[in-house]
Amino acid sequence: MRPVGIVIKRDQPTATELGREVVAWLANRGRVALAEPSTAERLGCEVASAADIAATAELVVVLGGDGTLLSAARRMQSQPVPLLGVNLGALGFLTAVATDEVFALLDDALDGRAEVEARMTLEVSIPSTGETHRVLNDAVISKGGALARIIDLETRVDGELVCTYKADGLIAATPTGSTAYNLSAGGPIAYPSLDVILLSPICPHTLTNRPIVLDGSATIEVRVNSPEESIDVTLDGQQGVSLANGDTVEVRKSANPVALVRVRGRSYFEVLRGKLRWGER
Amino acid sequence: MRPVGIVIKRDQPTATELGREVVAWLANRGRVALAEPSTAERLGCEVASAADIAATAELVVVLGGDGTLLSAARRMQSQPVPLLGVNLGALGFLTAVATDEVFALLDDALDGRAEVEARMTLEVSIPSTGETHRVLNDAVISKGGALARIIDLETRVDGELVCTYKADGLIAATPTGSTAYNLSAGGPIAYPSLDVILLSPICPHTLTNRPIVLDGSATIEVRVNSPEESIDVTLDGQQGVSLANGDTVEVRKSANPVALVRVRGRSYFEVLRGKLRWGER
Amino acid sequence: MRPVGIVIKRDQPTATELGREVVAWLANRGRVALAEPSTAERLGCEVASAADIAATAELVVVLGGDGTLLSAARRMQSQPVPLLGVNLGALGFLTAVATDEVFALLDDALDGRAEVEARMTLEVSIPSTGETHRVLNDAVISKGGALARIIDLETRVDGELVCTYKADGLIAATPTGSTAYNLSAGGPIAYPSLDVILLSPICPHTLTNRPIVLDGSATIEVRVNSPEESIDVTLDGQQGVSLANGDTVEVRKSANPVALVRVRGRSYFEVLRGKLRWGER
Amino acid sequence: MRPVGIVIKRDQPTATELGREVVAWLANRGRVALAEPSTAERLGCEVASAADIAATAELVVVLGGDGTLLSAARRMQSQPVPLLGVNLGALGFLTAVATDEVFALLDDALDGRAEVEARMTLEVSIPSTGETHRVLNDAVISKGGALARIIDLETRVDGELVCTYKADGLIAATPTGSTAYNLSAGGPIAYPSLDVILLSPICPHTLTNRPIVLDGSATIEVRVNSPEESIDVTLDGQQGVSLANGDTVEVRKSANPVALVRVRGRSYFEVLRGKLRWGER
Repeated sequence: MRPVGIVIKRDQPTATELGREVVAWLANRGRVALAEPSTAERLGCEVASAADIAATAELVVVLGGDGTLLSAARRMQSQPVPLLGVNLGALGFLTAVATDEVFALLDDALDGRAEVEARMTLEVSIPSTGETHRVLNDAVISKGGALARIIDLETRVDGELVCTYKADGLIAATPTGSTAYNLSAGGPIAYPSLDVILLSPICPHTLTNRPIVLDGSATIEVRVNSPEESIDVTLDGQQGVSLANGDTVEVRKSANPVALVRVRGRSYFEVLRGKLRWGER
Repeated sequence: MRPVGIVIKRDQPTATELGREVVAWLANRGRVALAEPSTAERLGCEVASAADIAATAELVVVLGGDGTLLSAARRMQSQPVPLLGVNLGALGFLTAVATDEVFALLDDALDGRAEVEARMTLEVSIPSTGETHRVLNDAVISKGGALARIIDLETRVDGELVCTYKADGLIAATPTGSTAYNLSAGGPIAYPSLDVILLSPICPHTLTNRPIVLDGSATIEVRVNSPEESIDVTLDGQQGVSLANGDTVEVRKSANPVALVRVRGRSYFEVLRGKLRWGER
Repeated sequence: MRPVGIVIKRDQPTATELGREVVAWLANRGRVALAEPSTAERLGCEVASAADIAATAELVVVLGGDGTLLSAARRMQSQPVPLLGVNLGALGFLTAVATDEVFALLDDALDGRAEVEARMTLEVSIPSTGETHRVLNDAVISKGGALARIIDLETRVDGELVCTYKADGLIAATPTGSTAYNLSAGGPIAYPSLDVILLSPICPHTLTNRPIVLDGSATIEVRVNSPEESIDVTLDGQQGVSLANGDTVEVRKSANPVALVRVRGRSYFEVLRGKLRWGER
Repeated sequence: MRPVGIVIKRDQPTATELGREVVAWLANRGRVALAEPSTAERLGCEVASAADIAATAELVVVLGGDGTLLSAARRMQSQPVPLLGVNLGALGFLTAVATDEVFALLDDALDGRAEVEARMTLEVSIPSTGETHRVLNDAVISKGGALARIIDLETRVDGELVCTYKADGLIAATPTGSTAYNLSAGGPIAYPSLDVILLSPICPHTLTNRPIVLDGSATIEVRVNSPEESIDVTLDGQQGVSLANGDTVEVRKSANPVALVRVRGRSYFEVLRGKLRWGER
């Protein structure tokens, strides 16, 4: 029997508490719990690096919010280990499992009865530096400071010019990320299993610039044309990389999706109705 | 050599004139021109029904605007005959060929050198009456009169409840139709070759109801719950069908796409830039 | 001591029940309750026409929702009698008084301690027919049927051409009406005491057509240019008037505001936060 | 006869050229031209500081774009000297005078025949530092870096809590500024003579947070609650001031409007139609 990884939201006592219950529950079933050093110390379980957890665990339980899961997915991107996201507060889009559902779902998952869905991720590369990153939600190219409002982003899809966006920034989002920053910027919701990439400008100067839905096979190249501004790419809203003027950012579908454990019978639309309060004004 | 169909915008003298030039040009190449009765009379060419043109022509030249092409596509939906849409005014999304490009493109097309692209269409059926229609742009379910503003549209995708929209109406659009009514209602642009269906509410009462991008394989069922209102489905903005309270409208991808002749080297983004004036404020 | 008018939402048992309690409460204080015929019969109080209630009552208690209050305001527009709107379900924008607050507020009002605020109304006239109406929320000029999507509305403000809107319709709203249809169509919220008129197009074909805030002194003239369509003006979403092609609709501030009794200490923003759920995602 | 000030867009040869023509034209009429040092050198006219120009000139001709005029207005805010904005490229909202109209309009202005309109400005103060600024377009409170997307802005109007915006930022705009950043962020257009302040969130997390139109007499207080982020106030998109966590920014109407020379007979709507291309799709 393979071990089970545990990731918890830092500095959240309820996450630590639930984490200890999960460790005990797993021990009762003869399963070893693995966590990264500082978490392992708090939970009293085995220590392993994120990479080792990803390589050896049967699944990873993430206790926190959507941000905790995004961060775990990035640290464990080397391997397709399924993530089971549990939200300790209101349900999240990625952590749509409530506290009181954890053990039933863990039971299902360890007995092979849980549904696992593959979520598309994006590979974000910057040829001038050779860097490559992977995101589950979005890559956002935007001005680094408040002063400069409008930046020029010359954008191509599969080599064809789309336009030069004059905007606060540009979001390239997966269907999973469609309900994150993309939604605030006026982009559409995309069903999570779709093979599409969303390209949404942030506060475009040209009012007819609207979000575009592209094929999952598209390669998006964004060339930064703003000599006087500091411009960044932000990965899943959590990690920033500075760009130099003239730099190009390339975004395409990654070969490695993220595997999420689903609650059987909870449809995507049920999560939307709850999060966006569609039952009420 | 098979004949070539001609459709022209009614009551537009420049369309008639260009139509006559096309007939003469075809005659020079030994091709017969076919048109529906009233057009044939004006152009002095052979008469045929829309169905017969669709069944026998090698391609159909449509002289007019996007509306003329949508209407021709509906009349000829029985057959996959390619349509070559020529716009006599400003270029359209579907008629992105200018008057001075017609003959070069016709040459290419009749010599088999033109690119033809398949555009997804939707099948719209109303089980209570047994009716089925096909649209290239969109099916819109909306109130039939100005007085009643908000109607209730209980909407399911593949049997799962999405929500009950309280809105002026609901648009189900193809990628081709994404730049039509959908865009005015706040929906995204979708690259035309995508296998997706867009579901966009019109002026929803619930402000968090946002456009949703669905998989091309989705079956959308919309049940009308507004006993006191007159509600219609509008097909491509051109044909209306009245609904009774409690009626359900089903929308899914049709097995029959529409074939459009493309201008080689004119990218979709070039058409967008021109139509939406992305080069300017 | 002057009588108190009562208006209740038709066919709502809880409104009838609360209405009877109000009648009894008033009788205890030696006040006569007045209602229109069918309501008076249900509540067992004195009968009067809407006009007579407006002319003689010290205030009118409206039990229902925002729609009930809009309708009462229209029937009683001849007089500046204060309206006290009580919402039997979730609070409304106009009926922001809860059931359990009625008697305390009535007490205040009859003792002259309640705050009354004047809400701007609009006068809507159609010179070709000589008709004039007054609205508290909005006048909406829109297509009468689902088939015809886009109508042409040539719009002037104080004689200056604004533009010819090609849209589903056009909303002229008071600040009070800013949170009604205007909000669904993408218009802004306007603080209710402002002396402004909002002009918001519904699904405009031209994507750069955006809501405009005009001075309260503006005269808006909208000329209908759509020979083949049926077009209506809808008053507060409740009353429709048909327009002929070429007709002009004139909208300006009315000399007669509506008087609303306010809950002391409940700010407008508190109502917004509650109705629009600003405390939550 | 009082002198005339000249401001030109830096590093733009056509502005320098036209500036010299204006100097010569003024000399012919016996008028002295004044400019700030580097400009005076290029134009060969008298040197004065911005404050001295504002105090002594009869009017100031600004040759450049809207940004040049915003900057001039800020430098000369001590005095109500009229500004005549000439746009060397496409007309601007503030510089709606074309190159070929300059001399006729100058003639009118110096003969007292031009119309001058007062445009409301905002006073932006930061009590913790004692700073006060004046803006003609807008004050924008936003995150200083790309990484941190959402900041918390606890906002009060006249002491009443509006809500705590969770957003990329918040715009407080004058009617003049309504067509600048506010429009890109989804805010409405406000007729320039209105006595209102627009409050528009940038990419709000809460989708029901919508632009609000407030009375010109309102005092807006925004308290920054984001201990880990760098947050700035940006003034007219040109000058940035850093905020500390817990700082409050106060925005209210300034006692000093800016005076703009208008082209007689060019309505505000004509400028809108031209800039936003309302005559075309």
